[in-house]
Amino acid sequence: MTSSLSDVQSPFPEPLAPEPATGEGHRSPTPSLTAAFDPERFHDGALDIVSRLTTYLGDRSVRGLDLLDPAVLLKAARELMTPERQRVADFDADRVNQIVDLYTGTGIPVYSPGYMGRQFSGVVPLASLMDLVGSVVNQPSSFYEAGQLPSVAERLMAEELNRFIGWDRDRFAMVTTSGGSLANLTALLAARNRAFPQIWTRGAGGMSGPPAIAVSEEAHYSVTRAAGVLGIGERQIVRLPVDRAGRIRPDLAGPALDEAHRRGLRLFCLVASAGTTSMGAFDPLEELAAVARRRGLWLHVDGAHGASLLLSDRHRDRLRGIEQADSLTWDAHKMLFMPSPCTLLFYRDGTTARGAFRQRASYVFDEEPDVYSAYDSADKNFECTKRPMIMPLWTVWSVYGPALFAQRIDRLCAMTRQAYRMLAAEPDFAVAHEPESNILCFRYLPDDLEQATAHRLQLEIRNRIRGGGRFFISKVDIDGVAALRVVVMNHLIDADHLAMLIAEIRDIGQRVLRASAATRHDQQRNGSHS
Amino acid sequence: MTSSLSDVQSPFPEPLAPEPATGEGHRSPTPSLTAAFDPERFHDGALDIVSRLTTYLGDRSVRGLDLLDPAVLLKAARELMTPERQRVADFDADRVNQIVDLYTGTGIPVYSPGYMGRQFSGVVPLASLMDLVGSVVNQPSSFYEAGQLPSVAERLMAEELNRFIGWDRDRFAMVTTSGGSLANLTALLAARNRAFPQIWTRGAGGMSGPPAIAVSEEAHYSVTRAAGVLGIGERQIVRLPVDRAGRIRPDLAGPALDEAHRRGLRLFCLVASAGTTSMGAFDPLEELAAVARRRGLWLHVDGAHGASLLLSDRHRDRLRGIEQADSLTWDAHKMLFMPSPCTLLFYRDGTTARGAFRQRASYVFDEEPDVYSAYDSADKNFECTKRPMIMPLWTVWSVYGPALFAQRIDRLCAMTRQAYRMLAAEPDFAVAHEPESNILCFRYLPDDLEQATAHRLQLEIRNRIRGGGRFFISKVDIDGVAALRVVVMNHLIDADHLAMLIAEIRDIGQRVLRASAATRHDQQRNGSHS
Repeated sequence: MTSSLSDVQSPFPEPLAPEPATGEGHRSPTPSLTAAFDPERFHDGALDIVSRLTTYLGDRSVRGLDLLDPAVLLKAARELMTPERQRVADFDADRVNQIVDLYTGTGIPVYSPGYMGRQFSGVVPLASLMDLVGSVVNQPSSFYEAGQLPSVAERLMAEELNRFIGWDRDRFAMVTTSGGSLANLTALLAARNRAFPQIWTRGAGGMSGPPAIAVSEEAHYSVTRAAGVLGIGERQIVRLPVDRAGRIRPDLAGPALDEAHRRGLRLFCLVASAGTTSMGAFDPLEELAAVARRRGLWLHVDGAHGASLLLSDRHRDRLRGIEQADSLTWDAHKMLFMPSPCTLLFYRDGTTARGAFRQRASYVFDEEPDVYSAYDSADKNFECTKRPMIMPLWTVWSVYGPALFAQRIDRLCAMTRQAYRMLAAEPDFAVAHEPESNILCFRYLPDDLEQATAHRLQLEIRNRIRGGGRFFISKVDIDGVAALRVVVMNHLIDADHLAMLIAEIRDIGQRVLRASAATRHDQQRNGSHS
Repeated sequence: MTSSLSDVQSPFPEPLAPEPATGEGHRSPTPSLTAAFDPERFHDGALDIVSRLTTYLGDRSVRGLDLLDPAVLLKAARELMTPERQRVADFDADRVNQIVDLYTGTGIPVYSPGYMGRQFSGVVPLASLMDLVGSVVNQPSSFYEAGQLPSVAERLMAEELNRFIGWDRDRFAMVTTSGGSLANLTALLAARNRAFPQIWTRGAGGMSGPPAIAVSEEAHYSVTRAAGVLGIGERQIVRLPVDRAGRIRPDLAGPALDEAHRRGLRLFCLVASAGTTSMGAFDPLEELAAVARRRGLWLHVDGAHGASLLLSDRHRDRLRGIEQADSLTWDAHKMLFMPSPCTLLFYRDGTTARGAFRQRASYVFDEEPDVYSAYDSADKNFECTKRPMIMPLWTVWSVYGPALFAQRIDRLCAMTRQAYRMLAAEPDFAVAHEPESNILCFRYLPDDLEQATAHRLQLEIRNRIRGGGRFFISKVDIDGVAALRVVVMNHLIDADHLAMLIAEIRDIGQRVLRASAATRHDQQRNGSHS
């Protein structure tokens, strides 16, 4: 290292002729640019918005979706856009308020007891306030120096939640990432790189047998997608049979894996679900851990929905065996009621977390690790720029403690149980499973309908309920036949709401069946057989 | 389809014995749970936080980083956590305010003119207010029915920005996604799936030649990471040589690709940068498009940083040729000054956007596309639950128009030019390149130092400036030797701030060199040669 630096001092062959330093740099930015960053304008706008959001949060009316024709909404939204293009438009508080009103008035009303359809929910309002702070201070949290408190809060929150998982606190690791799909992909990467470290460098071609993963027939689409993304290939997904409640059957898992092994597949990972999306089913983790261990497989648990049950004394048992898993996806934007997305990915062995990715980039990574970079997460999560998503969760946890989450989870599960009891008591309804958490699937089946008819009936009911605007529920196919699905995500939902929903479904269902009988009758009378 | 549904009505062999519907469902949720969702508590908390943020935004003092020992911060943060575990802790507004103060007081002060170090910035405050609304209404935007306005706003924003790209408006497509890394991965997936559709199903093994991509030596680490993730393998990355300013040399790109082809690599994608991370260099897109077209390669442009220059009449020309690219990554959280992350991924041909992923999931995807599902994006982006990240951008655009962005971009580039002029006029500084946007790399080089000494000197200067707390700048290795790097992301930065920074660097540099000379002198006097 004795060569001189003079040759890297400048890439320009000719000497530079700098202009005098009296140009642009001494002019002020334009007033309209400065005004857009004016703290007082922020303050006044904030008061307007907070007032509107307070009203919004106070509306407890029972309502579902006001589904607008996208073309109509597009036109309304376009009219809210300033036509000014040549200069910065004058600030127009009315325009902002109209946008806010259009925003709060459309989409799923997550705070209404009429909303029972998806796995996201109204958030703990304090979480949103901390989201505002995070948005303003804009400290992306992949590097300690950029986001000091978020980096530390991740460590603290990881410790808190790991008390419920039960891993060795000196060995486990946690990273936050943008959604459950990305967490599942990252865990599969870590598993792949442990089993086949050469793929990162050499690629997946030229291997003696194809890498493969085993998943439940009921696994979330992000898991099977990940196989496509990683170059494993969907054909190398071994589907494990489930029971009628949607849980992997451990007695059939072993033989299925052995059969895959005989076919030359090189299995490296078994993915179990703690709360499937369809029915909220919990795979038997303890038994599956034994199956995985015997075969040297990485056990990843997709607990995006159900990991939160660990916080509840009443429901923790659904995840018995979690301490034997290798990794766990946990969405705080589902049953911890945070703004989306806020996903936590846990590893039992922190050193494997570093195996998911490899990179070199002198502009962000320091040459020599120090006390600061020890808190960096960029080498362990997919994102380079990452929202400080832990802050709303850590703040709510710090202010209210874990009992807030446990109480709400218990309430939601209890009310789902209640829905199950009520539906099971109705002769014209059929529940598809006993609920394990806060998801329940059922069908309106007043008669012994043919499968195709029953399928169409549920779809029609779901769409008419959505169109009716009082409730929002979802649908899912179970054994190839559509079922109605409620996800109880709001503690305000009570038995009266459930009774209203049941009555509405029956009413719609009866009308659909009568209309279709009338059509059949007409067709027969007219001799039509189409 | 004539089989009866009676066999799927219930998975339970025995008849259900429902409990009477008078249990939990008729009890109210606990008062402490209800109180956590109280709109008035939200309102009062919001006023406190807005007041604190207004003060924070008004602080224009010149300051860098107050870098705390993580252990000290960890202790301070832990003390803010309620010890209550058995019941929901009483609400404590002081605790919230202390958390906010700790949050705003740590991390990078992005609104200060002392911050010149990274590619994220203080945000347009209105964007954060819309982020608050989005956080409260919590409408994940991958499906139209969940987030109606965000879905429509994506369409409108795509149209607006595509005016500057110039693609056929009936053919192009845009999706939002959580960060530039994920956008680059998604584009590479779409390219891979177009060239090798069989990989999604069969996996990457057993191909006759390994799939490969070509990237700049200066490409962001997320691009090379993606090769590892997708199973392409780092060895199948063809590195294209760059000139001294960090731009791919198109005259050398063709031969490099032909050589890779002769070695049996099956190239499918060329990745160019519109604004590299290190030096903000813009690859010559027009020439590279010709190179790619001749070889049937997908041209992806990583414009995470620099695509925003399209909005500026003065700087648009840096992206000449963009209309010939196949896909473009554009981070609105960089030069459009949005909260992180807000990334837009554009495709010239919208049908290829659907090629990135394949999935089936009856709980979210409808059987028959309708006018609503035509606005769904979940089949085209990685996430299932996705933050409605478009709303802050669309709102600011709607209220202020494109000129706000163009003016700020022009200001930042002009000020970077100013920094270049000032540094070039200083005999003891060496600029590494002529700035193409708002990134400038340079070294403090008062003497003709050896490379290793020069390298260590820059690192030491960077760390001492960071520790000094008045400025925050970054560093990057160029040709193996560290350089100092400023990213001008704040319109308040003027020539006086730059002069202060230059003086501080010189002062620190001189002290470091004197100290090291004194050490050498001591060692020589003591006869030490270690």
